[in-house]
Amino acid sequence: MPSSATLKESNQEDFAELHQYQTKRATVPAMEELLYEPIKLLDHGFLRVVDYMGDDSAIVQAARVSYGKGTKQLNQDRGLIRYLMRHWHTTPFEMCELKLHVKLPIFIARQWIRHRTANVNEYSARYSILDREFYVPAKEHLAAQSQINNQGRGDVLQGAEAARVLDILKSDSETSYNHYLEMLNINEANDQLVDPNKQGVARELARMNLSLNFYTQWYWKIDLHNLLHFVMLRADPHAQYEIRVYADAILEIIKNWVPFTYEAFMDYRMNSISLSAQMKEVVTRMLRGEQVSQENSGLTAREWAELSERLLSKV
Amino acid sequence: MPSSATLKESNQEDFAELHQYQTKRATVPAMEELLYEPIKLLDHGFLRVVDYMGDDSAIVQAARVSYGKGTKQLNQDRGLIRYLMRHWHTTPFEMCELKLHVKLPIFIARQWIRHRTANVNEYSARYSILDREFYVPAKEHLAAQSQINNQGRGDVLQGAEAARVLDILKSDSETSYNHYLEMLNINEANDQLVDPNKQGVARELARMNLSLNFYTQWYWKIDLHNLLHFVMLRADPHAQYEIRVYADAILEIIKNWVPFTYEAFMDYRMNSISLSAQMKEVVTRMLRGEQVSQENSGLTAREWAELSERLLSKV
Amino acid sequence: MPSSATLKESNQEDFAELHQYQTKRATVPAMEELLYEPIKLLDHGFLRVVDYMGDDSAIVQAARVSYGKGTKQLNQDRGLIRYLMRHWHTTPFEMCELKLHVKLPIFIARQWIRHRTANVNEYSARYSILDREFYVPAKEHLAAQSQINNQGRGDVLQGAEAARVLDILKSDSETSYNHYLEMLNINEANDQLVDPNKQGVARELARMNLSLNFYTQWYWKIDLHNLLHFVMLRADPHAQYEIRVYADAILEIIKNWVPFTYEAFMDYRMNSISLSAQMKEVVTRMLRGEQVSQENSGLTAREWAELSERLLSKV
Amino acid sequence: MPSSATLKESNQEDFAELHQYQTKRATVPAMEELLYEPIKLLDHGFLRVVDYMGDDSAIVQAARVSYGKGTKQLNQDRGLIRYLMRHWHTTPFEMCELKLHVKLPIFIARQWIRHRTANVNEYSARYSILDREFYVPAKEHLAAQSQINNQGRGDVLQGAEAARVLDILKSDSETSYNHYLEMLNINEANDQLVDPNKQGVARELARMNLSLNFYTQWYWKIDLHNLLHFVMLRADPHAQYEIRVYADAILEIIKNWVPFTYEAFMDYRMNSISLSAQMKEVVTRMLRGEQVSQENSGLTAREWAELSERLLSKV
Repeated sequence: MPSSATLKESNQEDFAELHQYQTKRATVPAMEELLYEPIKLLDHGFLRVVDYMGDDSAIVQAARVSYGKGTKQLNQDRGLIRYLMRHWHTTPFEMCELKLHVKLPIFIARQWIRHRTANVNEYSARYSILDREFYVPAKEHLAAQSQINNQGRGDVLQGAEAARVLDILKSDSETSYNHYLEMLNINEANDQLVDPNKQGVARELARMNLSLNFYTQWYWKIDLHNLLHFVMLRADPHAQYEIRVYADAILEIIKNWVPFTYEAFMDYRMNSISLSAQMKEVVTRMLRGEQVSQENSGLTAREWAELSERLLSKV
Repeated sequence: MPSSATLKESNQEDFAELHQYQTKRATVPAMEELLYEPIKLLDHGFLRVVDYMGDDSAIVQAARVSYGKGTKQLNQDRGLIRYLMRHWHTTPFEMCELKLHVKLPIFIARQWIRHRTANVNEYSARYSILDREFYVPAKEHLAAQSQINNQGRGDVLQGAEAARVLDILKSDSETSYNHYLEMLNINEANDQLVDPNKQGVARELARMNLSLNFYTQWYWKIDLHNLLHFVMLRADPHAQYEIRVYADAILEIIKNWVPFTYEAFMDYRMNSISLSAQMKEVVTRMLRGEQVSQENSGLTAREWAELSERLLSKV
Repeated sequence: MPSSATLKESNQEDFAELHQYQTKRATVPAMEELLYEPIKLLDHGFLRVVDYMGDDSAIVQAARVSYGKGTKQLNQDRGLIRYLMRHWHTTPFEMCELKLHVKLPIFIARQWIRHRTANVNEYSARYSILDREFYVPAKEHLAAQSQINNQGRGDVLQGAEAARVLDILKSDSETSYNHYLEMLNINEANDQLVDPNKQGVARELARMNLSLNFYTQWYWKIDLHNLLHFVMLRADPHAQYEIRVYADAILEIIKNWVPFTYEAFMDYRMNSISLSAQMKEVVTRMLRGEQVSQENSGLTAREWAELSERLLSKV
Repeated sequence: MPSSATLKESNQEDFAELHQYQTKRATVPAMEELLYEPIKLLDHGFLRVVDYMGDDSAIVQAARVSYGKGTKQLNQDRGLIRYLMRHWHTTPFEMCELKLHVKLPIFIARQWIRHRTANVNEYSARYSILDREFYVPAKEHLAAQSQINNQGRGDVLQGAEAARVLDILKSDSETSYNHYLEMLNINEANDQLVDPNKQGVARELARMNLSLNFYTQWYWKIDLHNLLHFVMLRADPHAQYEIRVYADAILEIIKNWVPFTYEAFMDYRMNSISLSAQMKEVVTRMLRGEQVSQENSGLTAREWAELSERLLSKV
């Protein structure tokens, strides 16, 4: 392998990329503004755009190969993109690609990596030494276990219980990192061996002492169709808060990158609702003027609650 | 669906893209030269670069996230790329992406599409009308069936047999296209209905009368790792000639795009050989000075022939 | 390559598989009935189950690894599967796998293969010779081009126009097949060379003279989640009739194989509707008692038509 | 969500599956023996076959759809499988599928999941509570960091240094688990709340205090082609020991499941070597009788070492 990796070097990344080049490729001024700039998230995380391919026009261009060309006025591009989104013609959206550099806690990385249709290069703790950086929730995000939903959060913890949890998270993280360095026999201040008579355990073993709130980082590259799918699942209110902040930041990037696609995505995905066969029947009965309650709806209590939340509560 | 597609429009694509933009993204001057320019292949086919993401440095950049940074001199980038290629560290090569516009005969498109890890938007004959363009092999590529290999080509056909084959291919293609238009009730000269009293069969049905040598086209987007895999299989001497010309053209693009990767790919993939456990044993015995023939080699006749062709014939 | 492939052999497949084995694997009696039996489709096509893995319980089993175990009564399995389907928890459905042997026209195979998340082994006309089998639509499926939808079908063709189209399809197919054999120099009756002085053109070239309605066949293997996605797109009324008959047959297999999943799929996918943000607003206003027409709905004419068709027409 | 998950329940899995069914599917007696039986690995891990689809004959069957049928004697099946493996005809191997239940440390799960072409359902610590089970290396696997290879292991640690490392790993794991339960407010003995006045932090947050050596588990389903690729990378001597033990166990399963494929895989993959263009030149010169040393070989020192290790050392 190439030259040795050293402590903290992952922070020495030079974020200033000042070069300007001439290109004939599709270029989005708003993305040029965003390029390379880290967007800070959680306590030590970030996300930055490293490269992008295509724009709204690239989607239209690919769609027109499939469906034939029409005129090219702006509002027709918008209309075509909305048509594609509405009818699940997904392949044209695959013609755009985004590359991000992301720093995130390991337990979030474990959720994120389940999206398989992406390219990933992660910082390897087999080769390199992780930094002393771990996630501790802000007080207002320190939630209790939900009493009604196994996977959910309840109220924010208060007082002594909250203080105790934060204390545990911080002190256990510090301890596990101190012991990580001790096992490696590495001096944090200068990257040198602490005791020349010790060998230090292999990096690939030492890392197992770190807890899941330590930060890792990766380059992550994905096409726009699959990126939208990621956002739909991870910007959802039921997603864990700590991944939602990343999904929200990506959604904001999409808004800058492909504004027509963003608008169509919000209308036909994020803010749409799906009515099951049974829910459709309930709504039809209501539109006919019938009084429908959960008892005579044919829906389970849970489904009734979902329909109420999504639609009826707005009436 | 958006406005109607008309005959021949797929040829009206405006290949001149004169705009120049400023970008901070990785930019490769040799690719800027290639952008949008069709490379003519076979009798009516072409291939052109529509967009690209990344360069040799993007591969190095992603690898260094995984393995830690070293110095950045040019020859070290080359060495790192060779290391990655040699040891099958494939994910950094996924950090580059290429988008092509390709026009190719349908029977070649059917082979090509088997490479699943790509994004595709193909011209749809459900929506649009195909042009009168079909592939007829050049005389020197009109090969006989191989007598020894079910999937192979033998000698080039000669004389009357060759003439007859070419005549069939041309006249059947013309006939099937004339009938295609007749069934559609479309006048090729002006895209109008021929007989106002006829409806014309649905496009999605009429297309079935076209033969597999008609040209289709698509936008095709793929990451560099999977592109190299495509080239390894399709630029191979055993690949069908008509797809090999496309793979060879892509290989030339790769050479311009990522020269270090190209060089490593040629050395460690295209021009490498794989020795099975048994072949390795044979070579070892030979290096010890033993005389080894097929009979005492432990190899089948076919394997012996393969070893001879790949290695021994050069001795 | 192995021994030579000969004409018609693809029809000699022995469909009777009489062996019975003992297994501890999940087994579905209704699928055992279906195993290996060809279901005839179109004029020469078929589809048959060659193997399957898992059942409704396998989905539940995998889900409970993720979410924890509850009790195991039957109605709870059903409830859990409905919950998974409703909330897009798709990975448990990937735990079932289906392998089909399918015979289908090439132009349908070209649509089908766009579903990339599947394993495929297709009959190769580079190695083997295709049979004289081509698709000709039944009269009642010989549709005109839709006047309002570029990709759609209009009324069924009548009289002389219909007769002419069927005549073209049949005679051009016969001609292209006769010429295919002539170019190969093969006698259809006995698989022998016709003229010993001719070589015959390479199979990989001769095939290009066949039209897109000729039949091909393949083994196709896919997990249940991706199979449901295939069915949702291809059993849709907007899908081309010729692929819809295959999707409908697969849906019937799913009903036998995983009945709880089938029921949930019908309720939450096939018979559900999606309301965009704008459509949701319209329905909300209607539920409040407002009179809403297209003009004051904020929907385009097309969206209004879609909402009417999907929901309002039932009122 | 379904009923609440409770502590330790993941260990209550009923491994005895005594039912016997009749099936017409391809069945492998050696696999029936293995079914459901956990193979113990590391200190608390295991791997067990939960289901399988296909056998060597299924590969042959699919290949013959592509290449045409020959005779069906046993040694011809073997020959065809060897041919497929040698020539990278990979799709027939995708026709077999394996489903495993695996229990493994999280830091190994993080490597494993990088193989994207698989179906996974993992135990979720958002929903459920992890058990007090963590990996501590056996003394003989407690390796020092390699001095020559950033990702490698050196000698086994000895004496006080080894004792200290093991002590850290054990005590930090115990502490982090005790605090995990404390934050959850759960009594390990009876799964009840410890303090009725505390809420307990959300499970999705508490888990972040656990270290990467804690065990997780999943159902993992993959086709044979991709499984072989997994094994090739993870049973390699350069793979981390803790994942290699799983890959070795899978290789043993493959040997029982598809013996012809196993043999071909060993000969053409695991025990084969790849010679780069430059290495090929060196071997050619040696076979001609030339004396070649690293200095006049054209190889780098590293490449020379690799060639020596793989081939020359056997001479």
